[in-house]
Amino acid sequence: MTLLAETIAHIVPADRSIAARTQALLDQKTKPRRSLGRLEDLACRIAAARGEIPLALPRKAIVVMAADHGVAVEGVSAYPQEVTRQMVLNFARGGAGINVLARQAGARVVVVDMGIKDSMSATEGVRVSRMGPGTCNFLREPAMTRGQATAAIEVGIRLAAELAGEGVDLLGIGEMGIGNTTAASALAAVFTGTDPAEVTGRGTGVDDAALARKVEVVRRALALHRPDGSDALDALAKVGGFEIAGLAGVVLGSAACRVPVIADGFISSTAALAAVRLVPAAAGYLIASHRSVEPGHRKVLEAIGVPPLLDLDLRLGEGTGAALAMHLAEASIRVLLEMATFDSAGVSDSGS
Amino acid sequence: MTLLAETIAHIVPADRSIAARTQALLDQKTKPRRSLGRLEDLACRIAAARGEIPLALPRKAIVVMAADHGVAVEGVSAYPQEVTRQMVLNFARGGAGINVLARQAGARVVVVDMGIKDSMSATEGVRVSRMGPGTCNFLREPAMTRGQATAAIEVGIRLAAELAGEGVDLLGIGEMGIGNTTAASALAAVFTGTDPAEVTGRGTGVDDAALARKVEVVRRALALHRPDGSDALDALAKVGGFEIAGLAGVVLGSAACRVPVIADGFISSTAALAAVRLVPAAAGYLIASHRSVEPGHRKVLEAIGVPPLLDLDLRLGEGTGAALAMHLAEASIRVLLEMATFDSAGVSDSGS
Repeated sequence: MTLLAETIAHIVPADRSIAARTQALLDQKTKPRRSLGRLEDLACRIAAARGEIPLALPRKAIVVMAADHGVAVEGVSAYPQEVTRQMVLNFARGGAGINVLARQAGARVVVVDMGIKDSMSATEGVRVSRMGPGTCNFLREPAMTRGQATAAIEVGIRLAAELAGEGVDLLGIGEMGIGNTTAASALAAVFTGTDPAEVTGRGTGVDDAALARKVEVVRRALALHRPDGSDALDALAKVGGFEIAGLAGVVLGSAACRVPVIADGFISSTAALAAVRLVPAAAGYLIASHRSVEPGHRKVLEAIGVPPLLDLDLRLGEGTGAALAMHLAEASIRVLLEMATFDSAGVSDSGS
Repeated sequence: MTLLAETIAHIVPADRSIAARTQALLDQKTKPRRSLGRLEDLACRIAAARGEIPLALPRKAIVVMAADHGVAVEGVSAYPQEVTRQMVLNFARGGAGINVLARQAGARVVVVDMGIKDSMSATEGVRVSRMGPGTCNFLREPAMTRGQATAAIEVGIRLAAELAGEGVDLLGIGEMGIGNTTAASALAAVFTGTDPAEVTGRGTGVDDAALARKVEVVRRALALHRPDGSDALDALAKVGGFEIAGLAGVVLGSAACRVPVIADGFISSTAALAAVRLVPAAAGYLIASHRSVEPGHRKVLEAIGVPPLLDLDLRLGEGTGAALAMHLAEASIRVLLEMATFDSAGVSDSGS
């Protein structure tokens, strides 16, 4: 049995009875019932994923996977391809948005080279799990082989298990890869059955001409490869990316370890949707941090069935939205752990 | 010249040129321009309020003002009036929602008794600035005198100045007071020229019958007193509350000291709107933390002209939403302070 098959077999649905017990505890706290709204839902969701009511504040990490994309040569990004590698170095040195917001969140950042064009040495503070020097240009040929897609997913599964083993119990996911909104748009179109024009956006900020080109690239790639939306591995291999497949693996590995995982923007959410297409029960472990400016993001979150916590017009990726939402997740657990009850504080309840 | 008049004279508009300089700095950071969306707006807004680009992370405090309301005898709340005092004790002991979320935010909590029914000793960890044992029932007579309204505002002004003097440079406001959504609804109707039914909600969670009663109470109070919407002191005196007037003073005092202030839910936002009606330039110092479940909150935020950062179905008050939003405010400043620039990180820019 492969690690992927084993992991899939291992994932159980999040435990709704634990969610109900968590809500009952929250209802004893000194506040009108449900007056902390979606923060209460979040505590219940985390508890249900864990399969137990949390007894401590979460230990947090954000996995940022980076890779290059053959399709970048089609002029679908506002930035040159070497920016992927430059930004990974920036992550390693702690200067990028994700580093800053992860510090703010109290989360460790784990950067993984899943296959950027020019390899980096491991001494640069980056884990090396390269599937190759970027994907192939999926306008010409499949992005990767089915075997590579499986291997990339398994990198993510192993990493999630390793982090869970070290005590991490709240994960975030993020990505970097010039050209990867094009891959995510292709996958989103396949997984949600939506026209490419509806799920393709400006990414890093392309102009109208490049946007039209991007939609056309996605449309032609789908016509060429006819990826099977009911077979997530097929779709990932044909029009995906190494970091996208890797993050789908992180979601599966997290779910198998009963660790809730916070998706970031359009690309990482599409990776999460790929995981959910492989194992529908993985959805119960997912938290949607925010709704980004990318038009496909909304569709993808609806397909997963998780409402976003934040709506701040973010479109940076890297896990930045996930880092911001970790604060809300931690706040929800803190309410559960630290708030007084009507009894303990001697406060009269409304009786309703 | 009274302290109020002096403070009003002291408030200058937030500095738009500083906002533009802040945006220019953000545009040099290693991210596509404006890709941190409303987080960037927030950094600019804070800088504009301060009148200078921040050089350090914010030092945060949340002022929670509590008072009782004569109108509570009309059965407009799901909770008995003694809950105001019980909850203030809960604040003092650190067990309430605001204590928990302020710890999460790294913010100090300053609790002020502006006039709860049964007085408390100062040894209980609460500042005592009582205007009386609760307001009068504004269904029968004005809630307070114009002099009391001014005095309550001046308590808030002094407190904001004191905190600013101690180095606090990001304030949040919150409140506690059984019956105070009824006062806030009356004020919101007056300040926004809206029918009471549109700005009156369920508060702590009243049923349909009590909601209808609450709307009727507001309607009759406005018919009885005819508060003048263009005279915020008149409105605060006739249908306001001691904590609401006090918080309006905190906003004025903050604006005078160039400290940005984060409003919480419906009641504290209505206090902020009262401050803006006294000094329109105070709006430039306000940040709206969230949009609550209360129907009047949206109207009040629109009248102030600040969009809410969060939308989490909160309806607890106490400053809990302000505490949650402090994280976003701090994150926005951290981005400004800690992110690498394209130059410093050697990352290629898009040139756009």
